[in-house]
Amino acid sequence: MVEHKVSFNEDTVVAVPAGALLTEAATKAGIFIAQPCGGQGRCGRCAVQVKEGRVRRRSTLRLSPEDVAAGYALACQSVVEADAWVSVPRQEMLERRLTTDRVVTDVAVPAGYTFECDQSIRRFCLTLPPPTMDDQRDDRSRLLTAIRQQATDCQQGGLDNLSISLPLLRQLGPLLRASNWQVTALLAARQSRSARVIQVFPGHAPADIPLLGVAIDIGTTTVSVWLVDLTSGRVLAQAAEYNRQIRFGEDVISRVMYASKNNGQAELRDLVLQSINILIERVLHKAAGDPHLAAGNGQATRPALESSSIVKATVVGNSIMMHLLLGIPADSIRLSPFVTAVNHLPPFSGAEIGLDIHPEAEVICLPGVASYVGADITAGVLSSGLDDMAQVTLFMDIGTNGELVLGCRDWLVTCACSAGPAFEGAGMRDGMRATRGAIEEVWIDGHTYEPTLRVIGDSKPRGLCGSGLISLLAEMFLTGVIDKGGHLNQHLPTRRIRIGESGPEYVVAWADETWHGRDIAITHVDMDNLIRAKAAIYAGISILADSVGVPLESVEQVLIGGAFGKYINVEKGVQIGLLPDKPWDNFKFLGNTAVLGAYHALLSQVAQQRIHDIADRMTYIELSADNSFYEAFTSALFLPHTDLSRFPSIAEALTGMA
Amino acid sequence: MVEHKVSFNEDTVVAVPAGALLTEAATKAGIFIAQPCGGQGRCGRCAVQVKEGRVRRRSTLRLSPEDVAAGYALACQSVVEADAWVSVPRQEMLERRLTTDRVVTDVAVPAGYTFECDQSIRRFCLTLPPPTMDDQRDDRSRLLTAIRQQATDCQQGGLDNLSISLPLLRQLGPLLRASNWQVTALLAARQSRSARVIQVFPGHAPADIPLLGVAIDIGTTTVSVWLVDLTSGRVLAQAAEYNRQIRFGEDVISRVMYASKNNGQAELRDLVLQSINILIERVLHKAAGDPHLAAGNGQATRPALESSSIVKATVVGNSIMMHLLLGIPADSIRLSPFVTAVNHLPPFSGAEIGLDIHPEAEVICLPGVASYVGADITAGVLSSGLDDMAQVTLFMDIGTNGELVLGCRDWLVTCACSAGPAFEGAGMRDGMRATRGAIEEVWIDGHTYEPTLRVIGDSKPRGLCGSGLISLLAEMFLTGVIDKGGHLNQHLPTRRIRIGESGPEYVVAWADETWHGRDIAITHVDMDNLIRAKAAIYAGISILADSVGVPLESVEQVLIGGAFGKYINVEKGVQIGLLPDKPWDNFKFLGNTAVLGAYHALLSQVAQQRIHDIADRMTYIELSADNSFYEAFTSALFLPHTDLSRFPSIAEALTGMA
Repeated sequence: MVEHKVSFNEDTVVAVPAGALLTEAATKAGIFIAQPCGGQGRCGRCAVQVKEGRVRRRSTLRLSPEDVAAGYALACQSVVEADAWVSVPRQEMLERRLTTDRVVTDVAVPAGYTFECDQSIRRFCLTLPPPTMDDQRDDRSRLLTAIRQQATDCQQGGLDNLSISLPLLRQLGPLLRASNWQVTALLAARQSRSARVIQVFPGHAPADIPLLGVAIDIGTTTVSVWLVDLTSGRVLAQAAEYNRQIRFGEDVISRVMYASKNNGQAELRDLVLQSINILIERVLHKAAGDPHLAAGNGQATRPALESSSIVKATVVGNSIMMHLLLGIPADSIRLSPFVTAVNHLPPFSGAEIGLDIHPEAEVICLPGVASYVGADITAGVLSSGLDDMAQVTLFMDIGTNGELVLGCRDWLVTCACSAGPAFEGAGMRDGMRATRGAIEEVWIDGHTYEPTLRVIGDSKPRGLCGSGLISLLAEMFLTGVIDKGGHLNQHLPTRRIRIGESGPEYVVAWADETWHGRDIAITHVDMDNLIRAKAAIYAGISILADSVGVPLESVEQVLIGGAFGKYINVEKGVQIGLLPDKPWDNFKFLGNTAVLGAYHALLSQVAQQRIHDIADRMTYIELSADNSFYEAFTSALFLPHTDLSRFPSIAEALTGMA
Repeated sequence: MVEHKVSFNEDTVVAVPAGALLTEAATKAGIFIAQPCGGQGRCGRCAVQVKEGRVRRRSTLRLSPEDVAAGYALACQSVVEADAWVSVPRQEMLERRLTTDRVVTDVAVPAGYTFECDQSIRRFCLTLPPPTMDDQRDDRSRLLTAIRQQATDCQQGGLDNLSISLPLLRQLGPLLRASNWQVTALLAARQSRSARVIQVFPGHAPADIPLLGVAIDIGTTTVSVWLVDLTSGRVLAQAAEYNRQIRFGEDVISRVMYASKNNGQAELRDLVLQSINILIERVLHKAAGDPHLAAGNGQATRPALESSSIVKATVVGNSIMMHLLLGIPADSIRLSPFVTAVNHLPPFSGAEIGLDIHPEAEVICLPGVASYVGADITAGVLSSGLDDMAQVTLFMDIGTNGELVLGCRDWLVTCACSAGPAFEGAGMRDGMRATRGAIEEVWIDGHTYEPTLRVIGDSKPRGLCGSGLISLLAEMFLTGVIDKGGHLNQHLPTRRIRIGESGPEYVVAWADETWHGRDIAITHVDMDNLIRAKAAIYAGISILADSVGVPLESVEQVLIGGAFGKYINVEKGVQIGLLPDKPWDNFKFLGNTAVLGAYHALLSQVAQQRIHDIADRMTYIELSADNSFYEAFTSALFLPHTDLSRFPSIAEALTGMA
């Protein structure tokens, strides 16, 4: 019997017969390699790096060509055929590599960004002629004339319409005199050669005036704020927290209903403002320690970061979040024919909105398209680059609803699928948001039907979040725990399948393993909910493709935005028929595309205009008005789909396992 | 001896010798005819109407040609030459005829005013297509598109820039649905095809919606408010009251100084807002009883007059009053080189300013020209029609300062004379404002040097107001109580001339005749103040005329605006050299030209634009920068003037009396 030596990491060496699996070698060496799928080559958790020597890969599922080129192999699918030196990655590293979290990287300043060319916030250093007996023009004219003059001189385009607010007029006279007629004026430029004075500072030291902006994304669940140095374009700090409106409903509909009662509108407005303002305080605090923050002309003392230095904000969110922020009733969004009060909003000032920033700051609420395709999507399309792509691309943002955009540089269609909040864990017996204690990934051993769990924060499990639910559903399907209709196979030899209070269920964690001491299970009703949710989204994708006569196969890439995309495991999504069956590398996880789009619009007038163009260009398809939607939805109510030819890779896997 | 019969009124008949005076006949008949000037033919108080028969008029001073044609004659100057029937007017009637109060008449709606053509407030009855699954436009677009469409259809000119505020957006959705998509939108049109939605009402009954406006004049002393029905143009009610800021200074300068201390700015702003808002309440209350108020289409029930029905306001005032209303520091107006913070203001909303009117009401602060030539003057020029006159005209508005405008349709020059508050009674030993108890007219008997007083409210005298002071000074001069330098003739046989605590003085009323039981007197210092004040104004007139090379003689008419003009006696003004020496009928008293101008601007966009044009057209002459001013001022420090040839009628009168 031919034996080969296998070295693990840099110390342990064992000899195994040729033809043994790397997992067998590891066991012999006393090295722990996770195999949550039971060695079926599905989970990728047993990936190791073959540094020297050779193994035969029976399967490279879940490994990219780059991974393979770098020597990665699935230990449970790797046959030892020669001596080998194998490095076992630390489990956390593997976890990180395998979850889509890895795509969240530092935000790069858009190439070529310059404050002077791109920014709508403009700074004018002015030396005004002091008034004399021969020149008794009023202070306002004196200032505005000087600004107009400089705007023309600098070829920034003339300013026909220049305004200054009453609160600023109140400060102007004393300020001009105290600064001996040398001032720096800060303006917000708007369309059609108009501009508004934000503030007038004494003196000519623009670098001493930090010019900050915030990009704000109001998600139904999470509010995100990025603090940006407008002069360099750099993101100084990011922060996110739960939208405090959550206490009055997890989903948008229950919030709209709450808003229509008593003082609900004001209460919800106040709560989201609290969320945003606390985040603004937090990013300011975070950024105060940032050594990269423009410190002026080499001065040691950096100007303090005050909320009043935030002179511009861009805001995105779904249409209901935008309405609630502005205190505008959103009932009409909830009720047929589903109409917003307003999609395109004029610029506001910080004080008008209630943000803890400069009261005269320019606040730009980016435009939405329809009731369920809001500014988060138009901004997401911008930041994903979809509107400028040559190839046909699908953009998905899955939260409480699934918003979809299909298109390329020539056309854009969009729709919203009322998937319900299942993917956010809401409405499930043991569902929860993706916080500490949430089961975010599940693997089921194909032989024992025992699950392996990954729990956020490495704590005892408390429930299942969206990605955990998708993962669980896929695993149950692939291991035969459920059939393609979502029915539990009650004949399998495992006590985890049982009849609970609400019918058949599968126990994911026993009471003694959980945080709260109760079993965590997924019920038949839960599974039905999940399947209906994924069917709604897949049907939406089909209808979008049909509406423009593009077969789904010709969609060349899938861009996934939003928090959902941050945690989802693509294969699992494909396996349950939520995502179209495409190779792994056709999917791209973009993280929070909405806040990224708001960031781009914050920096550049061109980007802001492009979001408006996107909103204008998008053709909105109302699914509830589309007869073919119901048919597409019904066909998608199976795992992965009634028409298995739409999911060739799953068909193959099922064949392989059978 | 030839006798003639003279009948007085309809009953008393006396026989007097030919050559007797009518006053002698009256004394014989036991009829009282007032002769406060002692029968010198100066005061005009003895005017009677000769209904039949003939008298020889030795003088017709103070009688107009129309008066003479109507048979009026001065009894003390009329020689009986035939039988005559004489009517003696009741004294009040005579008083009214002789004081300029008589020119205050009902305000006429500008000829040809129509709401549809002239008004910037526009009303659109709209039937919006309700949203459907095929038409999911947002509410805002739906409304604005319909307005744009109708504006184009009605040939009112397209609207490129149509805005709606956040508070209105908050009401829009529920309102559109509750009114079943039939609404009336109220807009404020602005320049360059832009407009702002003020309110959206349910239904199509525009006549049920009272559209009111207020014209507001903020005087240093008095605030006036006119309530106007914008649809008919009628003035529904007028009210005025003291500017509550008075407690912190009678003149603008002391207010500016108060404003710069502690919380003075806010305090003064609050006080003037109180004054205005109380007047708004008062005019609404007054007008509620007006039977002419548009009652809709013949309905018996008239809509209630609510402050929220006031959808437009125009505001005028001197530059300091405007600054204080808006809370803008005005120190620079007080200090050389006397510059305002702002002359031209953008439109505001009612809520922004703090007026108790519709929060979205369009508030137009009319433009001023310079620190001491404010919107009260530009509006006054408009309402006086000066800017459109063929003949060269002088416009005077004399309050704390004297603002002067000289010009015609081709040119306008203006200046402000810092006359001080002497003509408002301020700074005088016994000076007071023109309220109850103020001596407003004085006549001195040329033989006894005893004065006859007219007191406001027929009460015991408390002091002397501006017109009383002018009248007193003129009488003292004409009767020789003072010389042309303003020095008291201490040799005259009257105990009224005496040496008081602050030097020589003339006692106008003895302690036992007065309200407070103290003597009322004018001191040498007072007279000096008055002469300096009148000299400043006359010098201003001279400089204006010189600046454009127009001799004062060629000024064809003098228009007098403001409260001062309401009470002044022109002859007295000419006699002291305050007013140029012109025949009586070249003077025209226009009352409060400022509020009248605001009223015109309230009604008509053209009038509003004309005030802006006036502000732009006026050439402001800064007297304190003009070297010739001091010389002109010094020359005017005599009664009536060093150069008596400038006052030929006075020269003649003095000769006649000597």
